[in-house]
Amino acid sequence: MKFLWIRLNILMGTAFLMFSSPLQATSPLPEQPPIPKDNPLTKEKIELGKQLFFDPRLSLTGTVSCNSCHNVMSSGTDNTATSTGVFGKKGGRNAPTVWNSAFLTVQFWDGRAASLEEQAKGPLVNPVEMGMKNHQAVVKRIKKIDGYVKQFKKVFKGRNPVTIDNVAKAIAAYERTLITVNSPFDRYLKGDKKALSASAKRGWKKFQEIGCISCHSGPNFSGPTKTMGVGFFMKFPTFPGSQYDKKYRLLEDKGRYEVTKKEEDKHMWRVPTLRNVALTAPYFHNGAVKTLPEAVRVMAKTQLNKTLSSQDVKDLVSFLKSLTGEFPKQTMPRLPEYRNASLVD
Amino acid sequence: MKFLWIRLNILMGTAFLMFSSPLQATSPLPEQPPIPKDNPLTKEKIELGKQLFFDPRLSLTGTVSCNSCHNVMSSGTDNTATSTGVFGKKGGRNAPTVWNSAFLTVQFWDGRAASLEEQAKGPLVNPVEMGMKNHQAVVKRIKKIDGYVKQFKKVFKGRNPVTIDNVAKAIAAYERTLITVNSPFDRYLKGDKKALSASAKRGWKKFQEIGCISCHSGPNFSGPTKTMGVGFFMKFPTFPGSQYDKKYRLLEDKGRYEVTKKEEDKHMWRVPTLRNVALTAPYFHNGAVKTLPEAVRVMAKTQLNKTLSSQDVKDLVSFLKSLTGEFPKQTMPRLPEYRNASLVD
Repeated sequence: MKFLWIRLNILMGTAFLMFSSPLQATSPLPEQPPIPKDNPLTKEKIELGKQLFFDPRLSLTGTVSCNSCHNVMSSGTDNTATSTGVFGKKGGRNAPTVWNSAFLTVQFWDGRAASLEEQAKGPLVNPVEMGMKNHQAVVKRIKKIDGYVKQFKKVFKGRNPVTIDNVAKAIAAYERTLITVNSPFDRYLKGDKKALSASAKRGWKKFQEIGCISCHSGPNFSGPTKTMGVGFFMKFPTFPGSQYDKKYRLLEDKGRYEVTKKEEDKHMWRVPTLRNVALTAPYFHNGAVKTLPEAVRVMAKTQLNKTLSSQDVKDLVSFLKSLTGEFPKQTMPRLPEYRNASLVD
Repeated sequence: MKFLWIRLNILMGTAFLMFSSPLQATSPLPEQPPIPKDNPLTKEKIELGKQLFFDPRLSLTGTVSCNSCHNVMSSGTDNTATSTGVFGKKGGRNAPTVWNSAFLTVQFWDGRAASLEEQAKGPLVNPVEMGMKNHQAVVKRIKKIDGYVKQFKKVFKGRNPVTIDNVAKAIAAYERTLITVNSPFDRYLKGDKKALSASAKRGWKKFQEIGCISCHSGPNFSGPTKTMGVGFFMKFPTFPGSQYDKKYRLLEDKGRYEVTKKEEDKHMWRVPTLRNVALTAPYFHNGAVKTLPEAVRVMAKTQLNKTLSSQDVKDLVSFLKSLTGEFPKQTMPRLPEYRNASLVD
C-alpha cells in the first residue's frame, strides 16, 4: 500500500514536471530565501547572529561552535561521517550543510524542526553536540558578555532581550544570508548555454528522465516549494533489498520514525538539497558513502531501482558539480570579549 | 647562587629602565613585527597561510585547526585552562595567544621553537593537538586539494612547492599580520594623555616601581628585544614557598627543563606578552588562575615577593586592560574544496 503511494508520488512528480515548461524544468536559486514575518533581517541582527554562530563559548566546554560542524568557510558541513561535539563525542547523523538551508521548509534529517529558529536551539543542548545543560545556561552565559547584551538590546528591544528565542532568531537571520547563487547550472538556466559541459547537460537530461527530479525538484533540488514548517519526506531506501542496505547500513536508523513513532515514518527522511553537493561528502544521513559517484549509484538503485552505466554516473556527477554556487565574501566576526576572567570552567 | 643571578637580572632590568627616558619607559607596539629574510610577506602567501590556519583538514580527524586553540576572532587563545585536540584529548599547557606572537623571539611556553615557522609544525603532529601521524601525512593531504597545490605553486615556485617547511612559512606569514596596535596605552605613549584613566596611570607607575617591568619590558611587554631564536626566560615562581605554589600547582610542570633536562632550566618559562592580557584568561602555563586580579596578586608574590594592596591590584589591572589593542578587520578565508569525496576517513 505504502509502496503504491510512493510510486504515485513519484509519478505525480514526473507529471508535474511534464506540465511545466519543457525547456526549463526548474528555476535558478533565488538571491533571498523566505523570511518569516516575525524575524525580519536587519544588518545588526545578521552581525549578531554571525558572532553567535562562530562563538565556541555557547558550548559547555568552550570548544564547539555552530561553525565547528557547519563550516561556512567551506561546504557548510564538517566533511566527516558524523560530527564531533564536546569531549570528543560523536553524533549519530551527518551534519547537513548550512548553505541554502534557509530554503528548506523543515530542518534536520528527520525534519523535526519547523524552522531555522527551532533548529538553532537543538545542538546547543544536545549532550553530544554543544552540551549545554539547558537553554537557561546558554542565556546565562551570554548575559555575562557585555558586548552581547548591548547588541541584543539594540536588535531586539524590550526589557529582557537576551532570551533563547532571540539567540535563535539572530542565528537564523545570519543563516538566511548563506545563499550560493549563480552556479554554472543557474547561469545555464538563465541562458548561458556554455555554462554546462556536454557531460553536465547529458547529466541534467538523465536526472529528469530517470526521475531523480521527482524528489529533488525545485530551485533548491530539495522538493516542491511548500509552506515553511511542512516537510517533504521520502523513504530511503524506497526499494530495499539491494547490496547497499547492508554495505552502507541504510536500515539501521529509522529516520523520521524516531521522532513520530508512527509506522509510516519508518525510514522516511527529509529530501536534502543537492546545491553544492559536490562539496559535502561523505553522503547520506550516516555519512557512510564517501564519494559522489557512489552516492549517485546508491540513489539510483535504492530510490529508482535502476543500475546506471558508468557513463550515466559520470554525466550525473558532472551535472551535480554544476550546482556548486558562488560563496559570498564575508568579514570575520569579532567575538565580544569577556574581560579579566575565564567564562568557561 | 641562581637566586643571586636572578636578583642581579632584575636589578639590571631596573637599571636599564632608569637609564632610558624617564617619561617613556617603553615604546608603542610597532605596526610590523620582524620579518625573516627567508620568508618575506606577500599578499598571496598571507592568504594561503590564513586558509591553512583555519583548515581543520590539517588534523587527523578533520575537526581541529590552528584557530581551534588560537581563535583569532577573539583573544587568539581558546580561553580554557588547557586546550582540546583530536578525540577530545586535553593538552598539558594553556594555549598562548597568537596575536602579536610574531614579536616573541622564541615560541611555546618553554621556548622550544626558535621561530613561528618552527612552532607551526609542532601542533600538527602532536597526538593531543592535531594528531597527524607525521609531517608527510600533512603534506600528502594538502597535495590532494587542488586549490592548495595551485597556491603553493604560485607562492613558493620550485618543482615541489608543497612541503612542510612551506606550509609552516605560509602559516607564519599570516601570523605576522596578527598585530594589535593602537591600544589606549600606545595612544597614551604617543601623547594622548586622556587615553588612560587615573587608575591605569597609577597602575603603569606601580608596574615600573615594583619591578614588573624588569621582565615584562619592551613594546610587547615580553622582555628586552633579542635576536630571533634567543629566548628571554624567567623562573616562576622566583620566590617559591607561597600559598600559591600548591593552590595553583605552580611546581608541577618543570617548564624549560622538560626540553633541555638542564638543572638550571627547572621552572624556567619564556616571559609571555602582556598585550591583550585582559582577554586571555585563564592565566599562566597551566591556566590554573581564572581572573586577572588574581594573576596580578600571584605574580607580585611569586616573582617580586610582594603582597599588593587591593588598590594596587585594581590599578595594575586598569593598566593591563589598557594594553588591549585594536584587532584588524579580516575577511573570512575560503577553504579550497576537495571535490566529490571525503578527504578525512
